[in-house]
Amino acid sequence: MSELKKHFLNINKWSNREIHNLITLGEAFKHGKQVQLKHPFYAANMFFENSTRTHSSFQMAEKRLGIKLIGINPSTSSVKKGESLSDTIKTLQAIGVGMVVVRHPKTGWYEPLEKDSNIHLAMVNAGDGHGQHPSQTLLDIMTIHDEFGHFKGLTAGIVGDLSHSRVARSDGQLLNRLGVHVLFGGPRNWYPKDFDTFGTYVGSIDKIVPKVNIIMMLRVQRERLSKHDAATFDPKQYHKDYGFTEKRAKHLKKGAILMHPAPVNRGVEISSPLVESSISRIFPQMHNGVFARMAIIATLLKNRNLLLD
Amino acid sequence: MSELKKHFLNINKWSNREIHNLITLGEAFKHGKQVQLKHPFYAANMFFENSTRTHSSFQMAEKRLGIKLIGINPSTSSVKKGESLSDTIKTLQAIGVGMVVVRHPKTGWYEPLEKDSNIHLAMVNAGDGHGQHPSQTLLDIMTIHDEFGHFKGLTAGIVGDLSHSRVARSDGQLLNRLGVHVLFGGPRNWYPKDFDTFGTYVGSIDKIVPKVNIIMMLRVQRERLSKHDAATFDPKQYHKDYGFTEKRAKHLKKGAILMHPAPVNRGVEISSPLVESSISRIFPQMHNGVFARMAIIATLLKNRNLLLD
Amino acid sequence: MSELKKHFLNINKWSNREIHNLITLGEAFKHGKQVQLKHPFYAANMFFENSTRTHSSFQMAEKRLGIKLIGINPSTSSVKKGESLSDTIKTLQAIGVGMVVVRHPKTGWYEPLEKDSNIHLAMVNAGDGHGQHPSQTLLDIMTIHDEFGHFKGLTAGIVGDLSHSRVARSDGQLLNRLGVHVLFGGPRNWYPKDFDTFGTYVGSIDKIVPKVNIIMMLRVQRERLSKHDAATFDPKQYHKDYGFTEKRAKHLKKGAILMHPAPVNRGVEISSPLVESSISRIFPQMHNGVFARMAIIATLLKNRNLLLD
Repeated sequence: MSELKKHFLNINKWSNREIHNLITLGEAFKHGKQVQLKHPFYAANMFFENSTRTHSSFQMAEKRLGIKLIGINPSTSSVKKGESLSDTIKTLQAIGVGMVVVRHPKTGWYEPLEKDSNIHLAMVNAGDGHGQHPSQTLLDIMTIHDEFGHFKGLTAGIVGDLSHSRVARSDGQLLNRLGVHVLFGGPRNWYPKDFDTFGTYVGSIDKIVPKVNIIMMLRVQRERLSKHDAATFDPKQYHKDYGFTEKRAKHLKKGAILMHPAPVNRGVEISSPLVESSISRIFPQMHNGVFARMAIIATLLKNRNLLLD
Repeated sequence: MSELKKHFLNINKWSNREIHNLITLGEAFKHGKQVQLKHPFYAANMFFENSTRTHSSFQMAEKRLGIKLIGINPSTSSVKKGESLSDTIKTLQAIGVGMVVVRHPKTGWYEPLEKDSNIHLAMVNAGDGHGQHPSQTLLDIMTIHDEFGHFKGLTAGIVGDLSHSRVARSDGQLLNRLGVHVLFGGPRNWYPKDFDTFGTYVGSIDKIVPKVNIIMMLRVQRERLSKHDAATFDPKQYHKDYGFTEKRAKHLKKGAILMHPAPVNRGVEISSPLVESSISRIFPQMHNGVFARMAIIATLLKNRNLLLD
Repeated sequence: MSELKKHFLNINKWSNREIHNLITLGEAFKHGKQVQLKHPFYAANMFFENSTRTHSSFQMAEKRLGIKLIGINPSTSSVKKGESLSDTIKTLQAIGVGMVVVRHPKTGWYEPLEKDSNIHLAMVNAGDGHGQHPSQTLLDIMTIHDEFGHFKGLTAGIVGDLSHSRVARSDGQLLNRLGVHVLFGGPRNWYPKDFDTFGTYVGSIDKIVPKVNIIMMLRVQRERLSKHDAATFDPKQYHKDYGFTEKRAKHLKKGAILMHPAPVNRGVEISSPLVESSISRIFPQMHNGVFARMAIIATLLKNRNLLLD
């Protein structure tokens, strides 16, 4: 048996069994399970990049678990005085904070911190640069499990701006590991070559749609595109070439579902009415996000012996 | 009987009876009334425009009612990624937020949302563009009721920058509806013609002061004045022409009170010592604001069957 | 007996006995003491200058005491509309806030407010301009007391940018008053002449280190240096001339400790590995900060008869 996880940072370090346990626990929270803290427990959420859904979802998960929050606003904190992330986290630890949830533009921000023997509190990765967004990946996986009850034999198509998506890489890797066949669509110059290790580049959305149980559309992150791509990007043309349209939706298999990590550019990657259609799991994904995050946090608390039995 | 209100958006949609019930409930909260939620209830306050008093007053009302808050900072949220207000609200709803309190620069921001069958949570308008500020209107009305015990037969004078005041229009309309005689003062070019439907333009503050039971002074919102008005605005001259001065205060009727929605430009629209004088209800207005907002929120919760009897 | 303190603003107004009582109470909180509020109590923290540790430490202290917080963000509040600090505080008071914790760039921001008979709530100074940072001073004093059990006969060296440090002045004054011999080090042009009234300027860190029980290093606040000093400041040269290095640490007396108000510029005023060495009390200072602030707040609450016996 592997060591009990003290942090939730890189989902590739969590075994299939551990992932299944998180899903099961998330589903239990969704059906009303409650846990109790042994002592008052304090957390701080530090979002160095914009976020509504992830930040508010973590807050909701924490409050539902009875965790108290210390408010930190990175834009007005000592980070402005040049303090390192490591020293900020040690400060919070000294003050009595037991967990930090961090979104930071630096890929792998947590790597030096994991190795620092002076850091004892729990760390949760809410998104690191071009790296992962592992709690999003967990909620995506949980949404698929909710729908189909299993992973083996399913086919998922992930379509869009693959190169700027933290979600595409970690979702693709984990889906592949759990037995899902993964296809990628979108412009070839947005396809990172290393994705070949966990999926197949198809390109054309029209070829992908009829084959999949899950069509996962990605947000075109115009603020992250290269200067040239941003200048020449034509939303209407993109919608025509790679958007999930009502016409394309008709070619989905029966029972197939539409996912998107949101926020959606309505009318660009997805035709607006489909966002709230019967095949869409976009808002259910957000709903599951709270329970997935409760599962993540409760698992760390349990592994640290901070929950009553 | 009209349908139970699910939102608090436009005070003109609330009948006289409903307004009286809100006032009665607000006064009960002021005298210690408590209510109990059936289940944990979560709200989010989204202020897309600056506010101290309205924002903190809503927080206090929510906390006194036992509501838990999910913190959203519009300046660092996905709104920055171009997400619509509607999609932000649907996200919060998916996460388990049961009420949003919104201040937004767009007049009538709530109109399309009210009609959207996918929005189920309670919405409260904390100020919409050039539209209303209905919770301010309710606390003003409650302050007048506290003082006089009735509305019929009273005269109120509203003086100042009428064209940029969300408060002037909705206070004037509601006071008129409740039987108060409403007079308007201030420069003619700041008087919106449609105010004729619920009051009378007098102009001169000296003609208004001796006639009124309530003198309501408005803040000169220099940040909202036209370029020309802002450039030529002379605070000293304005104070002389339209300010509520100690000399003018002597001409008030016995028992008349001074109101102002605050923040006050001391020495511009009101002589500074009058702000905390015995005739002033400016800080009591703020005090009542908490109870008025508790009444608004508790009414929505009751109408949604979320309170224990 | 002096009057019971209603505010915590200027530590020089607190007698030796009162300081000792705060330390004793802080140590009691550190060992698990709890207090109970008679009624729900609401506070607001207003930080008009950046802070992580002070702001989060106050939050933690307040939450541990069961105080509820009303969130105010000065950068999006009515202060932006030109409202005075005094009127903002009166607004919060009207809304039911019982305590404000304020950090403000104006030296002595609290002086006019203390005298204002319309302000009744408790005020705590979390740093005023070039004035004091009295809760930091209390936690420093508490850390020294924790270590040595007494003050008389100790020698403390305070080294660095004395002129821009709120901590240096109030720590120096209080240490001197409590019987500690105070030495100052650092460049002469950063030494304020009035420090002579409570300590001795030595200058050279090498002369100071062997004499002291406490070496307190100050942050070089490059953002506050004069244009000329900021342009010519050479961190490496400063480290060589005035930094606390591993070589210098060897000349400390047995049992001597290293302190710093943080955030530390690692490699400038202190060699990085020393920050977490066995002689360092830098993170314990932060840990004590929570209990020192609990003691401050609980004392004000007790003096206002707001705690159960």
